[in-house]
Amino acid sequence: MNKIETVQPDTEALPVTRLFARFAVAPIDETAAHEAKHVACLSLLDWIGVAVAGADEPVSQIVRDYVASDGGTPEASVIGHPTKLPARAAALSNGAASHALDYDDTHFLHLGHPTVAVVPAALALAEKHKVSGAAFLDAVLVGVETACRVGEWLGRGHYQHGFHQTATSGTFGAAAAAARLLGLDEDRTAHALGLAATKASGLKSQFGTMGKPYHAGLAAQSGVEAALLAAAGFISRPDGMECEQGFGATHAGEGNDGALGLGTLGRSFVFSEVQHKFHACCHGTHAPLEALISARDDHGIAPEDVSRVEITVNPRLLKVCNLEQPATGLEAKFSFRLTAAMALYGHDTTVLSSFSDEMCRAPELVRLRDKVRVATDETLPESAAHVQVARSQGDAVTVHRDICDPLPLAQREAKVRAKGAGLLGADRADRCWQRIQDLKSANAAIDLRHLAEL
Amino acid sequence: MNKIETVQPDTEALPVTRLFARFAVAPIDETAAHEAKHVACLSLLDWIGVAVAGADEPVSQIVRDYVASDGGTPEASVIGHPTKLPARAAALSNGAASHALDYDDTHFLHLGHPTVAVVPAALALAEKHKVSGAAFLDAVLVGVETACRVGEWLGRGHYQHGFHQTATSGTFGAAAAAARLLGLDEDRTAHALGLAATKASGLKSQFGTMGKPYHAGLAAQSGVEAALLAAAGFISRPDGMECEQGFGATHAGEGNDGALGLGTLGRSFVFSEVQHKFHACCHGTHAPLEALISARDDHGIAPEDVSRVEITVNPRLLKVCNLEQPATGLEAKFSFRLTAAMALYGHDTTVLSSFSDEMCRAPELVRLRDKVRVATDETLPESAAHVQVARSQGDAVTVHRDICDPLPLAQREAKVRAKGAGLLGADRADRCWQRIQDLKSANAAIDLRHLAEL
Repeated sequence: MNKIETVQPDTEALPVTRLFARFAVAPIDETAAHEAKHVACLSLLDWIGVAVAGADEPVSQIVRDYVASDGGTPEASVIGHPTKLPARAAALSNGAASHALDYDDTHFLHLGHPTVAVVPAALALAEKHKVSGAAFLDAVLVGVETACRVGEWLGRGHYQHGFHQTATSGTFGAAAAAARLLGLDEDRTAHALGLAATKASGLKSQFGTMGKPYHAGLAAQSGVEAALLAAAGFISRPDGMECEQGFGATHAGEGNDGALGLGTLGRSFVFSEVQHKFHACCHGTHAPLEALISARDDHGIAPEDVSRVEITVNPRLLKVCNLEQPATGLEAKFSFRLTAAMALYGHDTTVLSSFSDEMCRAPELVRLRDKVRVATDETLPESAAHVQVARSQGDAVTVHRDICDPLPLAQREAKVRAKGAGLLGADRADRCWQRIQDLKSANAAIDLRHLAEL
Repeated sequence: MNKIETVQPDTEALPVTRLFARFAVAPIDETAAHEAKHVACLSLLDWIGVAVAGADEPVSQIVRDYVASDGGTPEASVIGHPTKLPARAAALSNGAASHALDYDDTHFLHLGHPTVAVVPAALALAEKHKVSGAAFLDAVLVGVETACRVGEWLGRGHYQHGFHQTATSGTFGAAAAAARLLGLDEDRTAHALGLAATKASGLKSQFGTMGKPYHAGLAAQSGVEAALLAAAGFISRPDGMECEQGFGATHAGEGNDGALGLGTLGRSFVFSEVQHKFHACCHGTHAPLEALISARDDHGIAPEDVSRVEITVNPRLLKVCNLEQPATGLEAKFSFRLTAAMALYGHDTTVLSSFSDEMCRAPELVRLRDKVRVATDETLPESAAHVQVARSQGDAVTVHRDICDPLPLAQREAKVRAKGAGLLGADRADRCWQRIQDLKSANAAIDLRHLAEL
């Protein structure tokens, strides 16, 4: 569809905060949102898997113990904690837990992780206010779409300046979802977003520390607080995103209209293009892994027959995930060579426990690892890889993969469910998926304990 | 004292976050801190006055209702609420209440309001951990000094870019005070400050909305949360202020060494130069008011004798507080002419209730107001005014005042106590002052209810 045709002058002319406020509270166009809603269900299953699996990470425990110590009104479920806690607290704790493994979904327009900021906020307020499953799912749809579109509006310049969109755009997304769940009108929602504009924070320089996963919880918490205060009559700047010295101007925002144009909000959903992570290791290794799995499964390559593997990637990735001889499970996640050997030997790279110190020492893997060579090609995007696998028989297989290439929805569903099975166990993941599917028409109040079998 | 002589190379060479962490946990040099500690006591009395008086403002009620609805472990007193709440919640609520009237102290190096961010955080954690009055006072001293020095380090560029130092520098000050009260070591304190670096936020574009007072609470809350998480082992960037894409680099920080040099931290205290607000109206009217009160009290000017008043100020102030014929109590606060008439007639401008619609209509005030002329002089700082009062007898009195001129400590004490009396009632203010004085040697746990007679 031509971009110009999709822009309605009436919405295009609205100031940015007002535009997002209107979108946040408007009825959902079910036709336009059909695919995105299915993807939202996938992201929800994915979120439950990574949040449950991440709940025992040190950062998750520290944040959970902190909110548990505060205690308070039992409003919302906290993964890993026996009783409910205030919505704000649950959003913080569940947000941090779900980003602890860095195994959650990514959006390349948003430039970050939208679901880990939005779903914890939406879940917490939906439980607090006993909102139906259907309304909860709508709030997730609107919140993630908002986070992605705000991320686009801020643009790469915002990210390059040092801000972490997961935290910053995430706060706006969480506030939008929260405002919708509280039934705020457009004006009150603009105040919630205006308050989000003065609360949103989070720096990329925290990468590699607990600060990164904490950012997801911080965004969720800030979104909940902004919406609850706005609901109570708090006056902020209802044009806080775009006003003079507002969030955009002070935070190196580019003010982009975005790939689809902000005027399409509500009629087109970029949420559909969210990327689920299918390997429990560095995102840079994913394209080679997908190519190698295809060589194995589609071209019948057996690991014993391999004489040589050549992986070609963008040279920027060499600094990210090219540890040649990893010795620990953590190092294995950043090794093109070892993960390649793991994939060819059929080890399940979707499973966290596959990345162990033992895996790094296994003799057959070390032998195959040493047959892998990493080459570079500046013309390749960071999301892509060429892989050539030569066999001792003399022939070779070449596969190209770009993880941003669209995947048919049925295939995405199968992959997300397989990942969920690895994280939650097959039966539990199946039951979760069924319950999530049922949300679309659920009138009963949502309950995370039931949904995720906590 | 010469600046060079006061800088010790060993501390000067420390990275900024480390320097502040070391200062936050170091023993207090009681000789160096003597005057600042007395000023801290004045700021504490001042804080109690404005927080109690501000507790019924709409923003205070909204924030208090929000934290009360969350409930939780009874740890810290909340002004206006019958029971204790978690320290984080108390810090948020008390911080917002104390800045609601915009009548709290200001520091012109900090470029904002240091006490409203630091004291609520320190009080909340001191009550939670049953810390002695003496240790609490030390934490306030360290926290406010940190907020001011961080504000200087960020500089005017940070403010001009659109950030509100009360919120941003305030978060670091609150975190420093909180870390000290929790007994963190230097390393853990650096992590608390590093977490503050990714949490600190607050935009000047919120001025004129509830966002501004909320910022003080937000900073206090963030400082408490950062220190509690750091105490539990949270890993952030222990160089989060100055690192590449750290808080300074991403937030238009100038990286100034400051008037005294950061190397003097702990040996010189800029806290002493904090300005208490002595009139319950726009800061721009304060210098003329001080001059007119001197004309009245020191030069015996009687209002009936006045034929003409000329107030000369910096021209930038004309856009701020030169409403010529104010009609409401709020407008009165922004009127050179009416406040001048009020002062000459002996109305108490330290008292909030003086600024009423009735005051704007009083015939004798309107008559005197219309004899006031406002002139400008670009060479005057915004903190200064010339005032000339001509009498019908033919003579005239000229007085110059700059509210930044140092005031003898005894005089400051008398003025802060008089303001406290106006806000709290004379007897209560006297008893509060006595209790605050006693804190310096108090071993008993601090309790805000007792201290402020809540």
